[in-house]
Amino acid sequence: MARADSGATARPAPGGPTIATIAREVGVSVPTVSKVLNGRADVAAATRARVEAALEKHQYRRRRAVSAHTASGLIDLVFHRLGSAWSMEIIRGVEVAAGAHRVSVILSELGGEHRPPQDWLDMTMTRPPLGVLLVAANLTAAQHQQLDRRSIPYVVIDTDGEPPADVPSVGSDNWNGGLLATRHLLGLGHRRIACISGPGDMLCSRARLDGFRSAHEEAGVAHDPSLVANGNFYVEAGYEQGLRMLSAPDRPTAIFAGSDMQAIGVLRAAHELGLSVPRDLSVVGYDDLPLASWVWPPLTTVRQPLTEMGAAATRMLFEMAAGRAPAVTRLNLATDLVLRESTAPPPR
Amino acid sequence: MARADSGATARPAPGGPTIATIAREVGVSVPTVSKVLNGRADVAAATRARVEAALEKHQYRRRRAVSAHTASGLIDLVFHRLGSAWSMEIIRGVEVAAGAHRVSVILSELGGEHRPPQDWLDMTMTRPPLGVLLVAANLTAAQHQQLDRRSIPYVVIDTDGEPPADVPSVGSDNWNGGLLATRHLLGLGHRRIACISGPGDMLCSRARLDGFRSAHEEAGVAHDPSLVANGNFYVEAGYEQGLRMLSAPDRPTAIFAGSDMQAIGVLRAAHELGLSVPRDLSVVGYDDLPLASWVWPPLTTVRQPLTEMGAAATRMLFEMAAGRAPAVTRLNLATDLVLRESTAPPPR
Repeated sequence: MARADSGATARPAPGGPTIATIAREVGVSVPTVSKVLNGRADVAAATRARVEAALEKHQYRRRRAVSAHTASGLIDLVFHRLGSAWSMEIIRGVEVAAGAHRVSVILSELGGEHRPPQDWLDMTMTRPPLGVLLVAANLTAAQHQQLDRRSIPYVVIDTDGEPPADVPSVGSDNWNGGLLATRHLLGLGHRRIACISGPGDMLCSRARLDGFRSAHEEAGVAHDPSLVANGNFYVEAGYEQGLRMLSAPDRPTAIFAGSDMQAIGVLRAAHELGLSVPRDLSVVGYDDLPLASWVWPPLTTVRQPLTEMGAAATRMLFEMAAGRAPAVTRLNLATDLVLRESTAPPPR
Repeated sequence: MARADSGATARPAPGGPTIATIAREVGVSVPTVSKVLNGRADVAAATRARVEAALEKHQYRRRRAVSAHTASGLIDLVFHRLGSAWSMEIIRGVEVAAGAHRVSVILSELGGEHRPPQDWLDMTMTRPPLGVLLVAANLTAAQHQQLDRRSIPYVVIDTDGEPPADVPSVGSDNWNGGLLATRHLLGLGHRRIACISGPGDMLCSRARLDGFRSAHEEAGVAHDPSLVANGNFYVEAGYEQGLRMLSAPDRPTAIFAGSDMQAIGVLRAAHELGLSVPRDLSVVGYDDLPLASWVWPPLTTVRQPLTEMGAAATRMLFEMAAGRAPAVTRLNLATDLVLRESTAPPPR
């Protein structure tokens, strides 16, 4: 039976330590070291820790045969949270790119955490997959080393923070997205523009906000910091921030939302307050999900190529699993502005 | 390394044929029969066909040890199409129920086909998973036998047709959903009610339509067959059918849609025709996706417990993988009507 790790051998990297070196040093048998490498549960925790420490000390790297990687197998696709149609777009891209290699996709979610529990990693290592894709999530340094020692590559999609230099990431040009959306609103004549960005600890949120600020600077328009808010990417956040901002005495005439879902929440808040979009309020979404063109009014939004992001990350993973370094380690696909009917000049 | 099939042995069911019986009959070696059972590619097609035929003739069933099934492993979750937030709700339920057993989920889609290609099944058998969940899809009789011979159980979620008697299915009470939605509209005083159902070849669509008809009968109201249409479950179908029906001279005063996505399409068609919902037109959705309460107006809809359907099917699969017959083989979870703001009495 073809196994994903049938190409994983005990051969060391040229000149590097062997499993036997590690076994001797720790004072255990070669099969025990092998069990630890394979993530097997039947090794005492203390022994496992000593073996891991020795593997790290000697910078042990398991070598894998290239052919085994492309012949068959599995990859892990791990979401911080399986949220909405957004996740579905990424999944689609990964499925198509993996299917082209006859590789299947194991889907899991971290229930909102940005770092997988050790439990998850242990289970993954018993598999083991050809590689791991992490969406809006990352590994701890120790987990990174554990995968590394087993030559299991990983790629981060829409990273929440700066991944280590040797871990590739795929995203989209968030800064440019923020810039384009804000330029559009400024160009229509808006001067009080609010920005509801994503979570403040995610790089993509910060990049978009910087784009928002840069567009103001280049137009010589001061932005009001009280009109900048963070929230998660779901409808509720747009609704709550929208209600709060639009009920304030000096309300914004335009809101740039962090996602199409947030924008739908803003539309709802506007409806409840009796404001007509785009006559009284312009709204720009983010993502260009299929639904964005179907809500009323159809959303002007920043398109990010989510499906293509999933596919590009998957192809990058296959490159690495085949032992080749990826040509680009920080891939940011282009974003562009899609004009629909939720934006117009501000009310006089 | 723990393997999903480490409990799969060559032992026959008591009194049944052994792999040796099959090998003798076909005139091949025991390893060749074993390779066919394991879905290996390195067996000539003609030989494979003869072995499969002999396995079928002798009703060979691979026996599996129960412990291996629950200890670790994978299940396959296969969608006819990975569509929208609807799929995401099912996935969530499967993920949670599988995670509770420390089992991972391989996700794939059939690109709109209702029967998987043989290619997919061959790949799946090399794995092999503890079991397979099929959403709005089913297997051919030959594929069914292939899984059966390898003791890989499967469960169908929202079946498109009647699955074989020994294949359990999980759905929701679609007939009752159709009944409740239509009763609600009739109760408000509507007499020209349209029904946009799902694809006509799916059981769920037919059951809902029958509920729609029954509600008319019980109220002594004749329904107009020209107001009944089929479409897929996506926004476009609701938009197109909505535009067509609402532009007709004697337009309906209410539309019962086959999904919340379809209902969003109907809302859009109404907007474009200058009809106000619910003043000029009442709309009832189906599913109660998270988004249903956020669009404007918030949708009155039939709730089906999608997450629970995914979880129930997964638990059923684990029962079968552990060698126990499921207690229920046709599980239909309850549906209920969620009243929001898209329905009102008809215009005078």
